[in-house]
Amino acid sequence: MEQKIIDEIEKVVGKDGYSVEPAVLYTYGFDASIFHYDPDMVVQPTSTEQVSEIMKIASKYKIPVTPRGAGTGLCGAAVPIKGGIVLAMQRMNKVLKVSVADLWVDVQAGCVYNQLNEELEKYGFFFPPSPGSAEACQVGGMVATNASGMRAVKYGATRDFVMGLTFVKADGEIVRCGTRTIKDASGYQLARFMCGSEGTLGVITEITFKITTKPKKSAYCLCCFNDVIAAGKCISAIIAKPLIPASCELMDSTSINAVNKARGNPMPDCGALIIVEADGESDEIVDRDIAIVAEIANGLGAISVTPTKDKALINKWTDARKSVMVSLAALKPGCSSVSLADDMGVPISKVPDAVQAFQEIAAKYNVTIATYGHASDGNLHTKMVIDPTDKDEWERGIKAVNEIFDVCIDLGGTVTGEHGVGISKAPNYQKERASELNTIKAVKAAFDPDNILNPGKSEQWTGTILRNLRYPCKLD
Amino acid sequence: MEQKIIDEIEKVVGKDGYSVEPAVLYTYGFDASIFHYDPDMVVQPTSTEQVSEIMKIASKYKIPVTPRGAGTGLCGAAVPIKGGIVLAMQRMNKVLKVSVADLWVDVQAGCVYNQLNEELEKYGFFFPPSPGSAEACQVGGMVATNASGMRAVKYGATRDFVMGLTFVKADGEIVRCGTRTIKDASGYQLARFMCGSEGTLGVITEITFKITTKPKKSAYCLCCFNDVIAAGKCISAIIAKPLIPASCELMDSTSINAVNKARGNPMPDCGALIIVEADGESDEIVDRDIAIVAEIANGLGAISVTPTKDKALINKWTDARKSVMVSLAALKPGCSSVSLADDMGVPISKVPDAVQAFQEIAAKYNVTIATYGHASDGNLHTKMVIDPTDKDEWERGIKAVNEIFDVCIDLGGTVTGEHGVGISKAPNYQKERASELNTIKAVKAAFDPDNILNPGKSEQWTGTILRNLRYPCKLD
Repeated sequence: MEQKIIDEIEKVVGKDGYSVEPAVLYTYGFDASIFHYDPDMVVQPTSTEQVSEIMKIASKYKIPVTPRGAGTGLCGAAVPIKGGIVLAMQRMNKVLKVSVADLWVDVQAGCVYNQLNEELEKYGFFFPPSPGSAEACQVGGMVATNASGMRAVKYGATRDFVMGLTFVKADGEIVRCGTRTIKDASGYQLARFMCGSEGTLGVITEITFKITTKPKKSAYCLCCFNDVIAAGKCISAIIAKPLIPASCELMDSTSINAVNKARGNPMPDCGALIIVEADGESDEIVDRDIAIVAEIANGLGAISVTPTKDKALINKWTDARKSVMVSLAALKPGCSSVSLADDMGVPISKVPDAVQAFQEIAAKYNVTIATYGHASDGNLHTKMVIDPTDKDEWERGIKAVNEIFDVCIDLGGTVTGEHGVGISKAPNYQKERASELNTIKAVKAAFDPDNILNPGKSEQWTGTILRNLRYPCKLD
Repeated sequence: MEQKIIDEIEKVVGKDGYSVEPAVLYTYGFDASIFHYDPDMVVQPTSTEQVSEIMKIASKYKIPVTPRGAGTGLCGAAVPIKGGIVLAMQRMNKVLKVSVADLWVDVQAGCVYNQLNEELEKYGFFFPPSPGSAEACQVGGMVATNASGMRAVKYGATRDFVMGLTFVKADGEIVRCGTRTIKDASGYQLARFMCGSEGTLGVITEITFKITTKPKKSAYCLCCFNDVIAAGKCISAIIAKPLIPASCELMDSTSINAVNKARGNPMPDCGALIIVEADGESDEIVDRDIAIVAEIANGLGAISVTPTKDKALINKWTDARKSVMVSLAALKPGCSSVSLADDMGVPISKVPDAVQAFQEIAAKYNVTIATYGHASDGNLHTKMVIDPTDKDEWERGIKAVNEIFDVCIDLGGTVTGEHGVGISKAPNYQKERASELNTIKAVKAAFDPDNILNPGKSEQWTGTILRNLRYPCKLD
């Protein structure tokens, strides 16, 4: 980065507001994906006005700018593959105003999800999306990736809660869009359009979220099966009943084995299991719903069905589910759990077909693939457990994931339910969204004519995704 | 319209698929707003492919095209003020596929809202937005205006149910966007962005809506007050409890008088009333919620509080509420009920301030303004009862509504909660969305560079809205 540019940025954010130290740049070259690339500068703004001034400088010198939340993304959306500036939002972390009577909260983009919900809980409200990274992820990143999690089937994803937001365009223009009203038919829904834009259309600095009342009661049911196909059929049957659970988490045998090995056997040893949550306004309702779940599971040949309201037991199950990703990394010595095809969505009734196909593809390419996730909304997470220094294993892996993506698209699904496109989904996203690509490119050019906002990702990526890897393996 | 263009279009849709008859053109020059303008041709396509061919012809000859649903819109969005083609979608009216196990329905844009829900009810599901024009309005128009209605506070608006859709761009390109999965983080959310675009970005031809289970129980409570301020305070107190009702409809004294006069006194004679609906999975829940509503209303000085599950009584109340708009037209001899400022949204807690301001503004300009609507989501409908041949009354009316819009914007609200911008909101929409206008114009140009899709509305409107009126009154 040229010194005169550094000087201009220092005038905006002060000496403490940026860094060009190699150790800092290295750190901000990662997110939670398999990719890495050093930026030239990390800037931590404290206000929308500072973001605007930084974008004016970036625009003047045509410097790439990659906005970044907590870096918990799994697809590389926050990895600055063209260098330039990483705009790290963690100093804009305040809950600005809670208006329970109007059902909204104003919050800065760098606020952590769990901190926001701690504030809302005081009023009996919550912001439901529940991403797996709830303890760390920032709400701005959630909007940028249209993040969700366990409760999406009942409550929706982040996009369903965005009333309005403030963003800064490539040229520094500050745009406040949307409203603070429940209803809003005033023309183009720009606020919602920023959901899923992954920093390519503007820098999100403040958000108005709709909030909702937290249900007063909940109950759980653990259903164990001989195989993942049976578990998938149980999920489809619950939805088709119709019964929409608050959450319904799937773990296959690889996931169960990994967690049991790493965490002292918290879960029954079985071929697959689902953890179903019912919530509602009374014990009568949640008891009724859990009884229906138990009846369906028993009718479909479950090995064991365990309904409960015991908090300790529920915590043991949900902790086990949440630890799948880290536990997989410890499954085989020298191996890592890598996010290649990590987050496909299929129509709910296609979950059994999808998981069966994943198993066949894993066997065909002799790779270890764990399947787990928010199966009641058709969102399946897979992780591949490979030796990341083994070129051959990467190459078999990428063949496997491309087939997995093809299966999901053929089943009427999507390459990403909640993690976003970034780099790792880019080629298959382009295949899935072929019909949209002209429009996507025209919109991107309308917002960012010089292509300085998070360039090179998504519809702009070309060729294999096995570049810019964080691992010590020469692949090209 | 030149004969060679008519011939080209006839080749696409056949002799029965279009009309240039003056009586037909006159009919399609109206929607439910105060405006009128004859198109040059009305075309009724039967497939997405036909729409694409028509757009290619329109694009070649730079002919304006105004897509039209059932013409129930109140703001003039479907009035073809630049002439050209009206694309009337009523022949594309099929429910294509219901997939209850996957929680979606595929439907053509011209399908009527109630017909869709009749189909879904067979499975215990529904598509909740409930517009006032439910018996006639088409789902494509609902998407184009992000329509909603009585149930938005609990269930959301149309935008919250759009999973995917097919639209045709100005140049005839067919775009399928979104997914049929509950979750979708695959980049720009084009499907949702089409919500509220009012035919200016493309012609929506098919939609995939998310569907949800219909609650098994409901109960109502009618709360009568001395004045509309007290009624507004009661609504704010219910939400702040927190208790989110399934619906909560407000009627002020002008609305009550009009309905009682036109329909044989269905409602108590009082200063204002609210009809609150609670729904849920058990009698216990709805009884509990209605008891809370009654307690709040009594605590705020209600004249009468009537909880009920009696279907005949509920139908009497809801029919009365639905007949406000037509009843107002019969309030004064020779007068009409006109939609000028018809559909403002304010933060819920500002409902009392807003209705008080509306009353003061009506008195100041000596006009009759009725206030009613979906007040629990802050969406207030007003109608002005005027002699539409009286130039002076129009001019006082427009001053009043401009002040009403200013009040709503100052209260943190929006000029349209559910009816859209069209013509009647355009100047005040431009004021409300000043910060968004550059971006809106850039997006419009990216989608429709020749400006043939529903031109002249919304951000493109200039000057007073008292032009192109349907009434026999010379105003300019």
